Amino acid sequence: MTEQTAHESFLADWAIHSRFGAVEGTNGVERQAASAADGEQRKWFAELLESRGFTVKRDAIGNQFGLLELVPGAPYVLTGSHMDSQPTAGRFDGAYGVMASAHACFRVADELRANPENAKFNLAVVNWFNEEGSRFKPSMMGSSVFTDKLTLDEALATEDPKGITVRDALDAIGERGDLAGLDVASYAEIHVQQGRSMEEDGVTIGLVNATWAAHKYDFRVKGEQAHSGSTLMADRRDALLGAARLVVAARELVDEFEPEALHTACGELTVYPNSPVVVASDVRLLLDLRSPSAEVIREAHERLMAVIERVQREDRVEIEIVAEHSWDQNPYPENGVALAREVAEDLGLTHDRVMTVAGHDSTNMKDLVPTVMLFVPSVDGVSHNLNEYTRDEDLVAGVDHLTGVIARLASGALVA
Amino acid sequence: MTEQTAHESFLADWAIHSRFGAVEGTNGVERQAASAADGEQRKWFAELLESRGFTVKRDAIGNQFGLLELVPGAPYVLTGSHMDSQPTAGRFDGAYGVMASAHACFRVADELRANPENAKFNLAVVNWFNEEGSRFKPSMMGSSVFTDKLTLDEALATEDPKGITVRDALDAIGERGDLAGLDVASYAEIHVQQGRSMEEDGVTIGLVNATWAAHKYDFRVKGEQAHSGSTLMADRRDALLGAARLVVAARELVDEFEPEALHTACGELTVYPNSPVVVASDVRLLLDLRSPSAEVIREAHERLMAVIERVQREDRVEIEIVAEHSWDQNPYPENGVALAREVAEDLGLTHDRVMTVAGHDSTNMKDLVPTVMLFVPSVDGVSHNLNEYTRDEDLVAGVDHLTGVIARLASGALVA
Repeated sequence: MTEQTAHESFLADWAIHSRFGAVEGTNGVERQAASAADGEQRKWFAELLESRGFTVKRDAIGNQFGLLELVPGAPYVLTGSHMDSQPTAGRFDGAYGVMASAHACFRVADELRANPENAKFNLAVVNWFNEEGSRFKPSMMGSSVFTDKLTLDEALATEDPKGITVRDALDAIGERGDLAGLDVASYAEIHVQQGRSMEEDGVTIGLVNATWAAHKYDFRVKGEQAHSGSTLMADRRDALLGAARLVVAARELVDEFEPEALHTACGELTVYPNSPVVVASDVRLLLDLRSPSAEVIREAHERLMAVIERVQREDRVEIEIVAEHSWDQNPYPENGVALAREVAEDLGLTHDRVMTVAGHDSTNMKDLVPTVMLFVPSVDGVSHNLNEYTRDEDLVAGVDHLTGVIARLASGALVA
Repeated sequence: MTEQTAHESFLADWAIHSRFGAVEGTNGVERQAASAADGEQRKWFAELLESRGFTVKRDAIGNQFGLLELVPGAPYVLTGSHMDSQPTAGRFDGAYGVMASAHACFRVADELRANPENAKFNLAVVNWFNEEGSRFKPSMMGSSVFTDKLTLDEALATEDPKGITVRDALDAIGERGDLAGLDVASYAEIHVQQGRSMEEDGVTIGLVNATWAAHKYDFRVKGEQAHSGSTLMADRRDALLGAARLVVAARELVDEFEPEALHTACGELTVYPNSPVVVASDVRLLLDLRSPSAEVIREAHERLMAVIERVQREDRVEIEIVAEHSWDQNPYPENGVALAREVAEDLGLTHDRVMTVAGHDSTNMKDLVPTVMLFVPSVDGVSHNLNEYTRDEDLVAGVDHLTGVIARLASGALVA
């Protein structure tokens, strides 16, 4: 197959793939984890893998694997990402990585079948279950169970807002399987950048060298139900007011640091009883601090805690940290970055080191095996949005690059 | 029946009544409109009315009436309130008014049967459908349809957050009926005060002479979905941030006026897509301004509009007023206040004129017929809360007073 044909083949499959869960009148998709659209796409993807000689298996948390054994009994080079999406999201996020991985493996498989002496490892494509965490929390659920960071039982018992468990949702789409682990030699993942630096700098391949530091909080603000019209203002303990002050304070924190030194956000906030004439008694909100600098995170955390003290005192609410977790800047292995740079130079593709703000399944995998994490540009960095867009030329350049990475990994690169 | 026996009879029925929808481990109830608990309570209430010789009928929006014809063909003195509740609410709000009305009518019916020459009108008790508006909006739905302020079709088609219509919810509890209107001569309602002024002033009977002025808004804040970690802060258009600024601004407005001149609140706020890693694109919130002074409302409205201008500009969100309605201070008829004062003086009950901040079904009825609105005290003014509490002595004093009011209305008071 020529490179031209390979590109056309990828783009043809990509076009079909992007129609699962399509949001009418837009270019985006809605394909939350274990939804009907996720199930239909997985069936189609299984058929695609099988048509290229791969054997499809699922493990107990619904990670979908396409396996090609070239060297009987040898470990696997694993590559993939996730096909689930946020609500009303773009069609690239995650899905591009899975499709690029599949096509890269198809090409490497052709090469290795022609030159079997180059094959040291077998090839596996993975579609991780529930990377997004919008329907079922936490995010990166499939890769967390695969890497023993989350127990299978806990994951399967997780409920969505309607009370449906992961177990039942996976059974409903027939995607709970019995593959018991996989012997993985190395891992590679490619993703669209969820930022605009590569596009601005004219870089085609991002060599991801670290994840930003972060501190994430699950807050519960407790007040007291009261009539929202008649209760004296001085008598109120308004949980929604307390929560709103945290949302505003998180945004205002940003301006206390250097430009772009700190990102803060609250994307999820739920009010009880959420009635027009009742002062809220209970608000849950998820709030994040992110920065390339762990020092900035620590300073922002202290300032946020001071705001919480003040809001508790002045608005007479209780603010509980139900859960929190934080991490310093988290590096990807340098030998993976070096391998990716070498491939980019071989192919004549522009490249640069970039950090990722968002987490990826590779964040879990890199703690276990040699790992390469790659980005292609995203126009204006639009992400988690129906209008997310990456140009075809960047999509196929990414597939070419990943093909080079997989070929080297399959020949034994990075593995001592 | 002696007054002592009447009090015991009321308190016995009240105790049974307060168990429908009881929230375990509390003194409160959850009995939202057309819920199973609402349906069970209505069945019990119908049996109580029938056991005292009343005929029970429902109209097409589920208002439940107990009718006693003493003067064939004459109009009815109507009295009642609502038995539906907010989520996790107190047992008095609304429910006390219906039960007090029933027992007042039982006593007046006994008097008029003994002295039929005093009866000019017939007696009717009403349990209005969906006064609270927590499950189905708007509030005061049953009395609004009854008084032609809302069409029946619009009300029946209203959906709760799960997509169940009023029509289907009423049918599920068998409470959609065929009573086509009622010839009403006059109306009376009693309610616990949703404030603490009467308790502080040592007043047993509140003669409600007006409703506070108010301005209510249904806001929609529109931003744009984005990755909440990686998107540059400067690129964001965060609808939840915009909404939080409105919640905080509404509270801060209060401090710009004299103490207790202005009440503001946001009790309901809903976020889309409400995912931890997505900047919200769409937030709906209901926000109220209330004041005894229409002038204060106008000034607060202007300041709120200025805040909205600033938030739209600085946070790059759009804020749309989906709906708004406002009213000036809204008086109850003075002849009803005078009648209630006369009854209180006859009975030796302390009394005072009070305004209501909250709306009541009587707000609708007073525009059609002569109306009397009464309050009894509420300990600490706790309302829309499981711990709402009114003392037995105040409950029975209210029943005594309402009995006097109904007796006079049935004899023709207030009707020219």
